[in-house]
Amino acid sequence: MEEKRSVKLALLGLGTVGGGVYKLLERQKEELLDKAGASLELVKILVHNIKKERAGVDASLLTDKWEEIIEDPQIEIVIEVMGGIEPARTMILEALNAGKNVVTANKDLVAEYGRELLDAAQKNQVDFLFEAAVAGGIPIIRPLKQCLASNEIDEVIGIVNGTTNYILTKMFEEGMDFEEALAKATELGYAEADPTADIEGLDAGRKVAIMASIAFHSRVTFSDVYTEGITKISAKDIGYAKEFDSVIKLLGVAHNTEWGIEVAVHPMIIAQDHPLASVRDSFNAIFLHGDAVDDVMFYGRGAGELPTASAIMGDVIDVARDIRYQCTGRISCTCYRDTLVKEFKDVKNKFFLRMQVDNKPGVLAAIASVFGVHKVSISKVIQKVITDGVAELVIVTEAVKEYHMEDAIEHLKDMDTTREISSVIREY
Amino acid sequence: MEEKRSVKLALLGLGTVGGGVYKLLERQKEELLDKAGASLELVKILVHNIKKERAGVDASLLTDKWEEIIEDPQIEIVIEVMGGIEPARTMILEALNAGKNVVTANKDLVAEYGRELLDAAQKNQVDFLFEAAVAGGIPIIRPLKQCLASNEIDEVIGIVNGTTNYILTKMFEEGMDFEEALAKATELGYAEADPTADIEGLDAGRKVAIMASIAFHSRVTFSDVYTEGITKISAKDIGYAKEFDSVIKLLGVAHNTEWGIEVAVHPMIIAQDHPLASVRDSFNAIFLHGDAVDDVMFYGRGAGELPTASAIMGDVIDVARDIRYQCTGRISCTCYRDTLVKEFKDVKNKFFLRMQVDNKPGVLAAIASVFGVHKVSISKVIQKVITDGVAELVIVTEAVKEYHMEDAIEHLKDMDTTREISSVIREY
Repeated sequence: MEEKRSVKLALLGLGTVGGGVYKLLERQKEELLDKAGASLELVKILVHNIKKERAGVDASLLTDKWEEIIEDPQIEIVIEVMGGIEPARTMILEALNAGKNVVTANKDLVAEYGRELLDAAQKNQVDFLFEAAVAGGIPIIRPLKQCLASNEIDEVIGIVNGTTNYILTKMFEEGMDFEEALAKATELGYAEADPTADIEGLDAGRKVAIMASIAFHSRVTFSDVYTEGITKISAKDIGYAKEFDSVIKLLGVAHNTEWGIEVAVHPMIIAQDHPLASVRDSFNAIFLHGDAVDDVMFYGRGAGELPTASAIMGDVIDVARDIRYQCTGRISCTCYRDTLVKEFKDVKNKFFLRMQVDNKPGVLAAIASVFGVHKVSISKVIQKVITDGVAELVIVTEAVKEYHMEDAIEHLKDMDTTREISSVIREY
Repeated sequence: MEEKRSVKLALLGLGTVGGGVYKLLERQKEELLDKAGASLELVKILVHNIKKERAGVDASLLTDKWEEIIEDPQIEIVIEVMGGIEPARTMILEALNAGKNVVTANKDLVAEYGRELLDAAQKNQVDFLFEAAVAGGIPIIRPLKQCLASNEIDEVIGIVNGTTNYILTKMFEEGMDFEEALAKATELGYAEADPTADIEGLDAGRKVAIMASIAFHSRVTFSDVYTEGITKISAKDIGYAKEFDSVIKLLGVAHNTEWGIEVAVHPMIIAQDHPLASVRDSFNAIFLHGDAVDDVMFYGRGAGELPTASAIMGDVIDVARDIRYQCTGRISCTCYRDTLVKEFKDVKNKFFLRMQVDNKPGVLAAIASVFGVHKVSISKVIQKVITDGVAELVIVTEAVKEYHMEDAIEHLKDMDTTREISSVIREY
């Protein structure tokens, strides 16, 4: 082992997360020598606008020229926190091909181009680490790739979007409706100006793709993930969930089955005594099951300046150790299988279905027979009379393939006695 | 990097955990090449009684001669699952000094002789890993040493003993008393014939010592840990905890404060909405707080054949990677500080105190003034009349140093109006 007492870093991007990394590097300056066995020296920060005032940041580090980083052979670690696909993808590939190690928090990129980037890292025998890309500060990538490596993991379920979990918590605990809770989340900075990626499950979908790839040792990309958001969840649905001693959560769900990988993001009704049910506010958690370890859960902050920077710096410290021990690239792509991802229509789920029907004799029997025709078994029915003429019907099914349920719903919609299909929510 | 396609292992001990390791090695035989980048070949198993029938185990691997292992230069990884201090300690030291990597699940040993063993590993540039020594299958050592390395961690609280958590869960959920719940735990194999180490908090104390050492970067040994068990917890206490929307858990508690490290194991009343409160049955969980990551929790099976084997095999796979990349020893002791461990009497806690007193005027005032004399502030008082002559008094205090509380209790015991101090439980 050759002792290497100083490792030079470059930071790409100085937004919220970049600022967090900068702060931690400053805060931990003296301890890092003990922690990483090397001093970590930030020598360049790539920014768009070099003239912008940035309080507390050493302006001499700023540059808007990528060449100053990529062409500097002394820079051994590049930390990418710009986000988005381009130019991040090109820069990371160039860095890897120049023999530099890369640490990133970029879930969009890893979910879509993970294979390409990991291949480039492997070819160049350098580290490409992305602990921060899934669930912010929560350690999950390293536990999966190392601690749990001897397991056959068959299930990964996660609350991996803090914005939607905050909204659903407010709806559940304070009786807010969706719009009100979203407004509150926006006010507190949990939701972005355009909240689509969060509330439609896209952000969660990317994270689930990454986790499924690592847990099941087979590449899953974002386009493989069925996504459905929380915009249709109503106070009424939440009321029923409470009646069932359950909560509603937006879950990323991945299973490795005999017939292929199942992967989706959608709201689910989940029993109150499941460990995920008590994950409140903007917290995230990932629950998984392995054949040896049984159930495990990881809980914490899935986003934010310092929690995300914590994950990035954990990776950076690890790269520094690898540089010192000349073993960069020791853990690269772990997708050594090539498992089929099932079409979502073939995935089995239990359903909670709420509908408004004419309140007259025979309606329930007719509806039950529709379910029967489409091979849907019913496990629970609740009927409430709303007004004289209309009854609200809640039906919970046994596990059934998505396409059978879809057919049953189309059929129900066509019935004269059906006034409205008010909600269809999966049940864990 | 030199490719190394086969790594030879020896297993010391073939009890429950050893059997689990054997099973996983068999089960994962083909996948391990992909996972570790090397085939893992078990070549020797050290047992006491070589003649004992062991179903499903290749008898040709058994030996009762340590020389056959320590003198075989081809064996690169020694997995110690015998437990206890000797001969485990001597064998591990000999293995490390012979340049072999060691993986162990031995918490007694690591909690007491961690420094000596890690020093020997460092001197010989080999790995000494012990993920399984704390909280069985739950990844916690690696997340602390790597993922969270950039944090200043100030709090680690854990439910790290499954037996006592099972007992407390039965008492809380099914109204069992302690003896009944212990009998049930024994029947199910959760509690050993002599349950002392579990119910008196000693087992948890060893795990907390190890976690505190790693989290705070300063060696804490088992003898530094104040331990108090759960034998005195009554159904009545649990009833009050419910009244306070709380539960009672046996917690390992470690804080890194300005004035030193605080470390203890004792029952605590903890609010129902704290993530640790929903950890039920024999599950374990470790909750911690870092300056960057904020709150994080790790949840799972803290013991058992396969969960523990899962952690051991995660370590073994990692050592195999290090052997392949010739970087064994890359993460060794992380205790680079030397922080004082505070005496327990100087630690501050909130207390729940339940006592029986004469039911007559002036008693409460007199008791309150005793607290005042000993600098104990009261935050809540509940008085219930049990019979005509006796009142049950529950007093919850603000945080106060242990020795002040102890003095106050001695003083209360001396009062003529005190019939009994029924329980004293700390509050989180």
